[in-house]
Amino acid sequence: MNSAKHHRKAARKSGEDAVVGRIQRALSASGPTSSLPIGIADDAAVWRPSSGRETVLTCDWFLQGTHFLLDLHPPYSVGWKCLARAVSDIAAMGAEPRCFLMSLALPASLTSGWLNEFLRGLGAVSQKLNCPAAGGDTTRRDQVLIHMTVVGECCRGRAILRSRAQPGDAVFVSGRLGEAEYGLRVLQRSAHRITARDPRLRKHLYPQPRLGVGAWLAKRRLASAMMDLSDGLSSDLPRLCQATGTGARIEARRIPRPLLAKVHTQKFDALSLALHGGDDYELLFTVSPENIPRVPRRIAGVPVTLIGQLVQQKQILLIAESGKETLLQKKGWDPFKT
Amino acid sequence: MNSAKHHRKAARKSGEDAVVGRIQRALSASGPTSSLPIGIADDAAVWRPSSGRETVLTCDWFLQGTHFLLDLHPPYSVGWKCLARAVSDIAAMGAEPRCFLMSLALPASLTSGWLNEFLRGLGAVSQKLNCPAAGGDTTRRDQVLIHMTVVGECCRGRAILRSRAQPGDAVFVSGRLGEAEYGLRVLQRSAHRITARDPRLRKHLYPQPRLGVGAWLAKRRLASAMMDLSDGLSSDLPRLCQATGTGARIEARRIPRPLLAKVHTQKFDALSLALHGGDDYELLFTVSPENIPRVPRRIAGVPVTLIGQLVQQKQILLIAESGKETLLQKKGWDPFKT
Repeated sequence: MNSAKHHRKAARKSGEDAVVGRIQRALSASGPTSSLPIGIADDAAVWRPSSGRETVLTCDWFLQGTHFLLDLHPPYSVGWKCLARAVSDIAAMGAEPRCFLMSLALPASLTSGWLNEFLRGLGAVSQKLNCPAAGGDTTRRDQVLIHMTVVGECCRGRAILRSRAQPGDAVFVSGRLGEAEYGLRVLQRSAHRITARDPRLRKHLYPQPRLGVGAWLAKRRLASAMMDLSDGLSSDLPRLCQATGTGARIEARRIPRPLLAKVHTQKFDALSLALHGGDDYELLFTVSPENIPRVPRRIAGVPVTLIGQLVQQKQILLIAESGKETLLQKKGWDPFKT
Repeated sequence: MNSAKHHRKAARKSGEDAVVGRIQRALSASGPTSSLPIGIADDAAVWRPSSGRETVLTCDWFLQGTHFLLDLHPPYSVGWKCLARAVSDIAAMGAEPRCFLMSLALPASLTSGWLNEFLRGLGAVSQKLNCPAAGGDTTRRDQVLIHMTVVGECCRGRAILRSRAQPGDAVFVSGRLGEAEYGLRVLQRSAHRITARDPRLRKHLYPQPRLGVGAWLAKRRLASAMMDLSDGLSSDLPRLCQATGTGARIEARRIPRPLLAKVHTQKFDALSLALHGGDDYELLFTVSPENIPRVPRRIAGVPVTLIGQLVQQKQILLIAESGKETLLQKKGWDPFKT
């Protein structure tokens, strides 16, 4: 049997309704709930917001060839990561996730094995983050396209925006930066020799949105601005600065970076990974000077580190360990740069 | 200058932040509002639900090559249609649209002229439907990918589902079916000879979600089930029947069909267009026998027509004008059928 025939046969056997039915069954294990009263099989999902709360809405592409590679990334990880990274935007507002809508386009040839593993990964992270599926749209495409919409909630007026910080505020990050990029490079160099469980790949394959950190800061109104680090510090910090109308000075020696395996210390520069590596989904936040003493070393089990401060002059300066100041170049992820 | 160079140059000039900035400016003309307090430039949008209402959430792919063709469809129409068809799912619940999130992936070569026209069409329908942009995600891709998420609201418990109808209920449709498919065929045959303003193309290029019909029925609790017709009656009616656990008998002579131009009466069969043509975004709804007299001939200016009834036996029968009964074959749009 040639592959084209097999492809057609798979298509005929499945049909849109059959594929949609499988997705619905996999994602609606818990059935209708009080906040999602009609399940996921209608034209639209019905969701009951809590009274006195604001709704937080975010959406995220996760595209084959752009955000993941079909031959490199296990489908379980693709399912996990597509929701985890979208929920990270909810964490970055200091909000809690409530439900998600997944739109999926995929080749008919992936509607059995690949789809099942993908749904297993998605189901696992959905359960872990307490964020059930509310609906979605499915179609066929020659490449896998995933789009996630996540609905969250926060107390009215408590969402932490990017724009309310001031010069003089301290700049913090959660976790270690660059670990996801390090994991990607390890995976690219040795895909056939390592397993998806290798701890160096954990951050790249199974990111954890920092919901606990975001909620802790929102509850105490400690962060003057916050965003998540998806494209890398050197790309994302300028965005926060632009939204607040400030610049920043950050100190190289303070930036938490990956612990490299001995064999990699010559190949990789840990500071470069931390400055420019994307996909970490750590939080970048600012705190006014009088509130700095109220920020503990760990929040919800995650280390947080002061790396610099916002300044009036609208540029991003990196202070090297030698004391030398340079303009920080954007070398993070930008799909429109070639 | 070869096209690859031009492409790269366009990419360098733009950059993700510049493209996103243009989209944000085009879509946030009205600025923050009381229900969308922070505009569209943060990690996530903040939306204030009205008290005592339920939130209705829907999402929809609109993909180059699958749902529209770059060389056939004017970008203004692509912008219009991507939101109009997504809002149709809100109409199908009897709800009102509140805001939308648009995710866009596009080639760098389309980030100027094409994107501007697209945003003009999107802006026009957004204003007409009173449904402002709340946020989105933008990336680069070799083909145009559009994903729309629409947020709507309805009174608690009033959303009209697909699943609450019973055998004996009458089946109605709004408008004329098959007009969009007719328009597509006219466009395919004579793209270089007609303009986008040709009235035969109106339904295909500029569909109108039936918000007035849906809201009128929801307010009076007249519809026992409702959905929108996106894939064609022969594909969508079985979905409504499956959700309700029924079958249906529909009468060919009653089905409102396109008025064909004289030159097309030999080429096209108006009944086939009405039965199988997709993209109409009319409403399909059912009404219990005692409520039939309460359904007027027009709702919110749109004709509504009784075309048959739900029956216990789980099959879809088409009664021809001769009285002959046949099983209605699904010939509507199904991306997983080849």
